Amino acid sequence: MSGNSFGHLFRISTFGESHGPGVGTVIDGCPAGLHIDPELIQQELDRRRPGQSAHASPRQEADRLQILSGVFENKTTGSPIALFIANGDARPEDYAHLKDNWRPGHADMTYSLKYGHRDHRGGGRSSARETAARVMAGALAKQLLAHAGIEISAYVSSIGPHAMPTADDFYTREEVDASTVRCPHPATSEKMIHFLDELRTQGDTCGGIITCISNGVPAGLGNPVFHKLQADLAHAMLGINAAKGFESGDGFAAAGMLGSLFNDAIEATVDESGHPKFHTQTNHSGGIQGGISNGSPVVFRVAFRPVSTIMQDQQSVDSRGNAVNVEGKGRHDACVVPRAVPIVEAMCALVLADHLLLNRSARI
Amino acid sequence: MSGNSFGHLFRISTFGESHGPGVGTVIDGCPAGLHIDPELIQQELDRRRPGQSAHASPRQEADRLQILSGVFENKTTGSPIALFIANGDARPEDYAHLKDNWRPGHADMTYSLKYGHRDHRGGGRSSARETAARVMAGALAKQLLAHAGIEISAYVSSIGPHAMPTADDFYTREEVDASTVRCPHPATSEKMIHFLDELRTQGDTCGGIITCISNGVPAGLGNPVFHKLQADLAHAMLGINAAKGFESGDGFAAAGMLGSLFNDAIEATVDESGHPKFHTQTNHSGGIQGGISNGSPVVFRVAFRPVSTIMQDQQSVDSRGNAVNVEGKGRHDACVVPRAVPIVEAMCALVLADHLLLNRSARI
Amino acid sequence: MSGNSFGHLFRISTFGESHGPGVGTVIDGCPAGLHIDPELIQQELDRRRPGQSAHASPRQEADRLQILSGVFENKTTGSPIALFIANGDARPEDYAHLKDNWRPGHADMTYSLKYGHRDHRGGGRSSARETAARVMAGALAKQLLAHAGIEISAYVSSIGPHAMPTADDFYTREEVDASTVRCPHPATSEKMIHFLDELRTQGDTCGGIITCISNGVPAGLGNPVFHKLQADLAHAMLGINAAKGFESGDGFAAAGMLGSLFNDAIEATVDESGHPKFHTQTNHSGGIQGGISNGSPVVFRVAFRPVSTIMQDQQSVDSRGNAVNVEGKGRHDACVVPRAVPIVEAMCALVLADHLLLNRSARI
Amino acid sequence: MSGNSFGHLFRISTFGESHGPGVGTVIDGCPAGLHIDPELIQQELDRRRPGQSAHASPRQEADRLQILSGVFENKTTGSPIALFIANGDARPEDYAHLKDNWRPGHADMTYSLKYGHRDHRGGGRSSARETAARVMAGALAKQLLAHAGIEISAYVSSIGPHAMPTADDFYTREEVDASTVRCPHPATSEKMIHFLDELRTQGDTCGGIITCISNGVPAGLGNPVFHKLQADLAHAMLGINAAKGFESGDGFAAAGMLGSLFNDAIEATVDESGHPKFHTQTNHSGGIQGGISNGSPVVFRVAFRPVSTIMQDQQSVDSRGNAVNVEGKGRHDACVVPRAVPIVEAMCALVLADHLLLNRSARI
Repeated sequence: MSGNSFGHLFRISTFGESHGPGVGTVIDGCPAGLHIDPELIQQELDRRRPGQSAHASPRQEADRLQILSGVFENKTTGSPIALFIANGDARPEDYAHLKDNWRPGHADMTYSLKYGHRDHRGGGRSSARETAARVMAGALAKQLLAHAGIEISAYVSSIGPHAMPTADDFYTREEVDASTVRCPHPATSEKMIHFLDELRTQGDTCGGIITCISNGVPAGLGNPVFHKLQADLAHAMLGINAAKGFESGDGFAAAGMLGSLFNDAIEATVDESGHPKFHTQTNHSGGIQGGISNGSPVVFRVAFRPVSTIMQDQQSVDSRGNAVNVEGKGRHDACVVPRAVPIVEAMCALVLADHLLLNRSARI
Repeated sequence: MSGNSFGHLFRISTFGESHGPGVGTVIDGCPAGLHIDPELIQQELDRRRPGQSAHASPRQEADRLQILSGVFENKTTGSPIALFIANGDARPEDYAHLKDNWRPGHADMTYSLKYGHRDHRGGGRSSARETAARVMAGALAKQLLAHAGIEISAYVSSIGPHAMPTADDFYTREEVDASTVRCPHPATSEKMIHFLDELRTQGDTCGGIITCISNGVPAGLGNPVFHKLQADLAHAMLGINAAKGFESGDGFAAAGMLGSLFNDAIEATVDESGHPKFHTQTNHSGGIQGGISNGSPVVFRVAFRPVSTIMQDQQSVDSRGNAVNVEGKGRHDACVVPRAVPIVEAMCALVLADHLLLNRSARI
Repeated sequence: MSGNSFGHLFRISTFGESHGPGVGTVIDGCPAGLHIDPELIQQELDRRRPGQSAHASPRQEADRLQILSGVFENKTTGSPIALFIANGDARPEDYAHLKDNWRPGHADMTYSLKYGHRDHRGGGRSSARETAARVMAGALAKQLLAHAGIEISAYVSSIGPHAMPTADDFYTREEVDASTVRCPHPATSEKMIHFLDELRTQGDTCGGIITCISNGVPAGLGNPVFHKLQADLAHAMLGINAAKGFESGDGFAAAGMLGSLFNDAIEATVDESGHPKFHTQTNHSGGIQGGISNGSPVVFRVAFRPVSTIMQDQQSVDSRGNAVNVEGKGRHDACVVPRAVPIVEAMCALVLADHLLLNRSARI
Repeated sequence: MSGNSFGHLFRISTFGESHGPGVGTVIDGCPAGLHIDPELIQQELDRRRPGQSAHASPRQEADRLQILSGVFENKTTGSPIALFIANGDARPEDYAHLKDNWRPGHADMTYSLKYGHRDHRGGGRSSARETAARVMAGALAKQLLAHAGIEISAYVSSIGPHAMPTADDFYTREEVDASTVRCPHPATSEKMIHFLDELRTQGDTCGGIITCISNGVPAGLGNPVFHKLQADLAHAMLGINAAKGFESGDGFAAAGMLGSLFNDAIEATVDESGHPKFHTQTNHSGGIQGGISNGSPVVFRVAFRPVSTIMQDQQSVDSRGNAVNVEGKGRHDACVVPRAVPIVEAMCALVLADHLLLNRSARI
């Protein structure tokens, strides 16, 4: 079933735990002849890395990209591309007290009940470090998308109670990363930062929402039934740690709207060669109709729950059912959402790259 | 890629358009030896069928289930199970005016741009009739789940502006179907019915939200990374026509909560044989941690946009780019959400059945 | 896992037993816009049908093709294409004596041990009738291949001890079907027919070999590692009932050859536009190097064991382990190989169609 | 499509070229709780390694196994298991003369035509070194099989014109590896060695046949239609470099046999608890009926063509179509077949491990 693989034609398999030798990904299905810039992959790894700001975990990881295969003279060869980063700075003894104790909100209990035993060091496979493998793969997928004129931008549109007034515009990476919480609306960003500073003193955590917009997606990506473009995006997003919700276009708000208001009217212009170019006047649907992209920006949002590790004592149990007190210690983020921005972009890139290739077989 | 197939071990492929001979599904992977009650499948088809109430489309379809293969002496044989219902009462001439005109909100434009031509009669593959194939397959999956002690209940928790005060309880099918809008809270149901009556006179449509709760799901279903249980559920739900959002557990509300409040505390009781039984005191996580079920009810919600076909004129274009007026006529629901209840249950059943089988390989 | 599905992009799922309502196939992934001639599918079904000659089973089946979905105005729409033929003339009472007795060489024992119970009527899913679903799907795949200039020809090159002197030429269907045993070498054909006549009087059966040649396969189909073109062909062929061996190019004979003799020398000619066209002087490799087609004809052979049902008494057991005598009765072929010709062609067509689509993603 | 991945539940993805950093494999789907002995994996790598005898290539590779993930305290955790060996002793300059010249029998031409450019150093992905990744994965699969009582043995039954008198017995690894050509029949082994010595002086190469026998395979593995056990084995075997043929049980010889002789009679004995145990008196079918294992040893043979690189000049072309002379130089085996023994075993182990897990879902 390959629960650690994702995609159909542009398919990745990831591996690695936070406290083993490293994490990596194998990309099977990238077309040959794509020029690869390793620096662009490294940049995305750096964006994901903790320790970039006061709001994030202080653990230091070098995260130097190694390309193990599939690229020759800076071009993809059609062979699988393996990307790897070594782990460093691992302190498994930090987790010794968690060997038998199950932390609330974490995967400790469910892993133990499913698999019978678990790698308790740093969460094993449930560690946020696993997402580095996605980011590497996604950064490569972005280079395939860029070749097709597709660009993705994600940003934090809400943290705890603080939300951007509107969040349906495309922002450049510079605009997004100018804020330490990756919110491109300066006033809201400031409130978020202040809010997180307070949370940290309380030893508490919070969640937030990320908005993601893809420009340049051609009409025709996606499928009519089970593999609707929004279905594959939802699949990708809910597979990210701590994600609890997904909405495409107007999403949950659409449930309260009338059809006469929601429908996006279609219009056409004529290009210089006399062919009609179609577009919608509004974008309530988020760029997708009937599961297939319509040429408008593809817009969705992802909700993240609060980080599970809090700096407070919590009541729980150990693996034998005894009540235990789980102490709040270790190195952890007060809010995971800003670091999740490159992960959301990466997973979006993987879905779009896959559908870009799948769409090559749509017509005779 | 098989965009019309769903699942891994319990895998279905569906086929059929609204105006061809019929719709069907092939289930490949149902274990042998399962007793099948065809009547239970027929009941689900009847629940999905339009024309059950004033709120739904008046088109009459007999929808008599035919089992074409895979069941012998009322038991599954391990061979693929093909289920089929013939179409009747099709009036393709109702759609002749839509051959070249693209309706706002529909898949007309995106199908045309993707495939080059399309079956314009009744929406072809984008027709709601396609969902009958899912309902048949899901009804069979439910019989596999029942054998494992798992029961699914979905209901309408919100239509337009009217929402149930709380929606985290499990209701019986009788309680749900007692309401023509499938809302088990009588006072809210009444408001919804009144609201839809008004909408109909205006020729308008609306959306809504369905809550789905699965009881009896054992701990251990799901996977840690890309195939988290909630990811596969989100994939399934966003693949339903008109679905625009998905949330697991507290979902989008969790984005505004603090970790100290969101975390579900774990406790244990000891069963008669002395083994610990684990459960969470609250269920903010919706029964899933780290992508794996924890033994609590699995809870999610799905948001649906308004029905696209409204009984009002709309501005649009034809396939050559000419502006056209799309008239509001045909036979359509004012609100699709009550009829989507069995579809949500069916897709949920397919995901759980698949993970039930996948989990058989979790341990040595 | 979908053991009844085949292919990746051009993917089929088959269903049906010999004594149920019928057999069918769902093709998911055929590109839109392909003109379909149903008559060409019917012709292939007719070629597969028993009762065409004295050498084959006298059971009569109408096998009228029904297209249930996916084709509109004679063109594929991109939706799944369901093809179906009803069963007729089924006499399950012919098999009543086999309910508990396990016939040597048949799947009775293995089905029973795997699934716990089985549909004993006519072999259930192990019936040769299942192959009709492959033939339908393959006949549609051939129309996709014809559009790309690819043509497939299979024929019987050996039956029992009688083999064609050489068997590496392409024959037209007319040449092949001119022989009732589908051997295009008249002298050998005559010997085969005489041999089968004798076998029939003895109540015995035999096997044979089919040669399959595909012309017009462009260079580039296939993959370097697990999905080598010959690997997928071998997979397809060994999945046919009674197939016991597969060889690509010189096959087993190559094991006894020297490299200096086996290697196919490469030469190039220049086409009118000045581009080099490459080809090999010989074709020991069967048109494939490194798992990828090289532009030469793709050549392979498939060995079939004798038909298991013989008109002689055999010692066996029943499901409780008691010794029983299995009588030789029923309606069966003395040699399955001539009827397997369209099945080999169909499976070859499915593999090539899949790789034709997969190859669209080979390069940027 | 993931052409570098293999299997369904026990699924591997391999990567790496002969002249990059190394080769590796990711195993996704190994059940948790399996005790892993890394030494057993290393032993298989050592068996595959060139330079073990005078008959094999003198290139020295350390091939030290690194386990990058998925094993904790010597047990599998249910997470993906990444295995890696670094490349050493690579001399890409040995291949500089091949940059534009296409060697007969090699994948140079087909890779170039498919992908547009290629990694010409040592054959890139078509290098025999790729098979090390399979051997690692297979060695792990063998540990899963051993846990289920399944044991695999392969050996060289034929090289060039020299074949073992009979080759249907199971030999221990010690018996097989006692011969430098891995032929457990001493007299034949001696002839093979002498034959290869002569070939080497001529600068020529040859092929051969490997027999593989699996003991302890329980009845019930495999599927009735496309994923017959022999079909998946054929797929696995023809995916090995230089493999040209596959036969299950009596294989091609069965094509010349009569049904009355081929059919394996079934008998039953009663075990101590009174349950019948079934077995066949003969094993013409190679342990498989109707695609499903019957409890007898699973027997198949694989034919390999001669090694393509010969120490003789050959006429060929370059990528622009100019005639060139390809000189015979480099480090290469005169016969690849003895080194292919662990590869055949590995691929067989992967198929059986996959079907062992798939079979867990066969019944309710």
